[in-house]
Amino acid sequence: MTLNECAAFLREHDRYLILTHRRPDGDAVGSASALCLGLRRLGKTAFVLPNPEANPRYAEMLSPCAPAADFLPETVVSVDLAEEGILQLNGDSWAGKIVLSIDHHPSNSHYAPLLVLDPKAGACGELIYFVLKELGVTVDKELATPLYIAVTTDTGCFRYKNTNPQTLRVGADLLEAGAPVDLNRTLFMKKSRARLLLESRMIAGLQFFREGEASLATVTLRDMEECGVTEADMEDIASVAGSVEGVELSVTLREVGDGEWKVSVRTGQFGNAGRVCAEFGGGGHGMAAGCTVKGSREDVTARLKEAVARHWHEEPL
Amino acid sequence: MTLNECAAFLREHDRYLILTHRRPDGDAVGSASALCLGLRRLGKTAFVLPNPEANPRYAEMLSPCAPAADFLPETVVSVDLAEEGILQLNGDSWAGKIVLSIDHHPSNSHYAPLLVLDPKAGACGELIYFVLKELGVTVDKELATPLYIAVTTDTGCFRYKNTNPQTLRVGADLLEAGAPVDLNRTLFMKKSRARLLLESRMIAGLQFFREGEASLATVTLRDMEECGVTEADMEDIASVAGSVEGVELSVTLREVGDGEWKVSVRTGQFGNAGRVCAEFGGGGHGMAAGCTVKGSREDVTARLKEAVARHWHEEPL
Repeated sequence: MTLNECAAFLREHDRYLILTHRRPDGDAVGSASALCLGLRRLGKTAFVLPNPEANPRYAEMLSPCAPAADFLPETVVSVDLAEEGILQLNGDSWAGKIVLSIDHHPSNSHYAPLLVLDPKAGACGELIYFVLKELGVTVDKELATPLYIAVTTDTGCFRYKNTNPQTLRVGADLLEAGAPVDLNRTLFMKKSRARLLLESRMIAGLQFFREGEASLATVTLRDMEECGVTEADMEDIASVAGSVEGVELSVTLREVGDGEWKVSVRTGQFGNAGRVCAEFGGGGHGMAAGCTVKGSREDVTARLKEAVARHWHEEPL
Repeated sequence: MTLNECAAFLREHDRYLILTHRRPDGDAVGSASALCLGLRRLGKTAFVLPNPEANPRYAEMLSPCAPAADFLPETVVSVDLAEEGILQLNGDSWAGKIVLSIDHHPSNSHYAPLLVLDPKAGACGELIYFVLKELGVTVDKELATPLYIAVTTDTGCFRYKNTNPQTLRVGADLLEAGAPVDLNRTLFMKKSRARLLLESRMIAGLQFFREGEASLATVTLRDMEECGVTEADMEDIASVAGSVEGVELSVTLREVGDGEWKVSVRTGQFGNAGRVCAEFGGGGHGMAAGCTVKGSREDVTARLKEAVARHWHEEPL
């Protein structure tokens, strides 16, 4: 479906409920918020289903979008949702009822009869921006702010490989429309003291293997307790182990209790993260994947290093 | 001088020597390199004076620009240089001989008879990009790469307040021209193990004052030795103390020997960094300033906290 067809569909329908994904990031929350507020500008009734897992950092954007108690949706739309299997925790009853999906994940499973998909977009927020323009909605500060959060969080503030010229031009338009540039100071340059202490521990305890080109970090329940981190502090914790110069692949073990470890694998040039995690029944893509492994810390560490070795010469893409 | 007049001047002259500033950043080095290579495309002879303090991370960009042994410059140009007092260490003999300054610092002292100054530009590299376009030079990958480094390093990869729509649009053009987007992975997301260990120590030892809205970090010679950092690892070390949520003003003390401390003050909303440092004979601007203070660690810490208190209610701008 083209952007133009999508705009025509949105103009013809009403009573929108917008859904996001589990553990929503800035792109999911910002896209949902901007689409909701944009539809209201056209006189439509539109709400975003509250997401219980939204990081407090982003959740504020959703507060004006919370549905009225008596709201009966007619048109269910998802944003940034690759498949119904990862629908937000309280959204299960809407599976199978999503009529329009606006997304940028190449892996989108085509669960919705109508799909706007651009895998080249750095963020779903880029697509929402173009949809709003097609709809003739003026993107002012109120709309530009959640869209700027969407675009910058999904591209690591224009640092990740998914950043492309279009991403930067959309960013420029949004700044011009009034998005506050220093949003990024808060989103990317400030961390809680607890988070910084935990990162310090992870760095100090980092194990290196494959001649320093691979690293493994461990976060125990005790580390988390002693540093005083909350779940919100754990966002993107898997990026810490890969922040050392020379490291091309990183593994992060996070203890979840009962000898169970949540594992994240991230890679740049070497190894295929998805295939490493598939060995343990996990999933993801070539550059970032996850799995859950049971066993002692030493045992899990050893098994992961072996799995990394087996997939070292595979390319991430 | 307009960009158009600048281009006319550059077309009319030849035998260019390009100068940068002390402790050159990515903007200085990238701007100099791109201007040099661009002038050569017009058939001009152009070199950049090697800068002994260039960070190895950026110095590579300058290697194709090193002057031939018998080079006699006719036209001396500076980039990103606010005043001759901070001319690169080996450039003193050129003071007073700079005919053209291309710069974006509002504080430019007008030391050169010809000046292209745009204080709104996020980076000097933006201006070099527009000058090259005026000159009709095709900005391809070779030129786009140093320019992208210039633009991204000076704006903290589009995160600092000096980022504006034009900065992002220039970034988009440069990506389109072939600048590798994953440059930013290396420049902003990777740090040496030694640097990360030093940051961990700084975070663990951080002092908070003004009810957590101000922080003070200390780096001793012993910390540096034990972590194994080199001078190149110390770039932007003053940003660490301000990375904690809630901190609006940060002070970093770095021991330089003989009871002497190099002090950096950074601020967002509260206090004027320049006025704090002026009390100790230092300089800078409202949001970032520096000075050198003699005394014991305890004494210097106390004096700085008092100075911060005196200027707390002043605005940074």
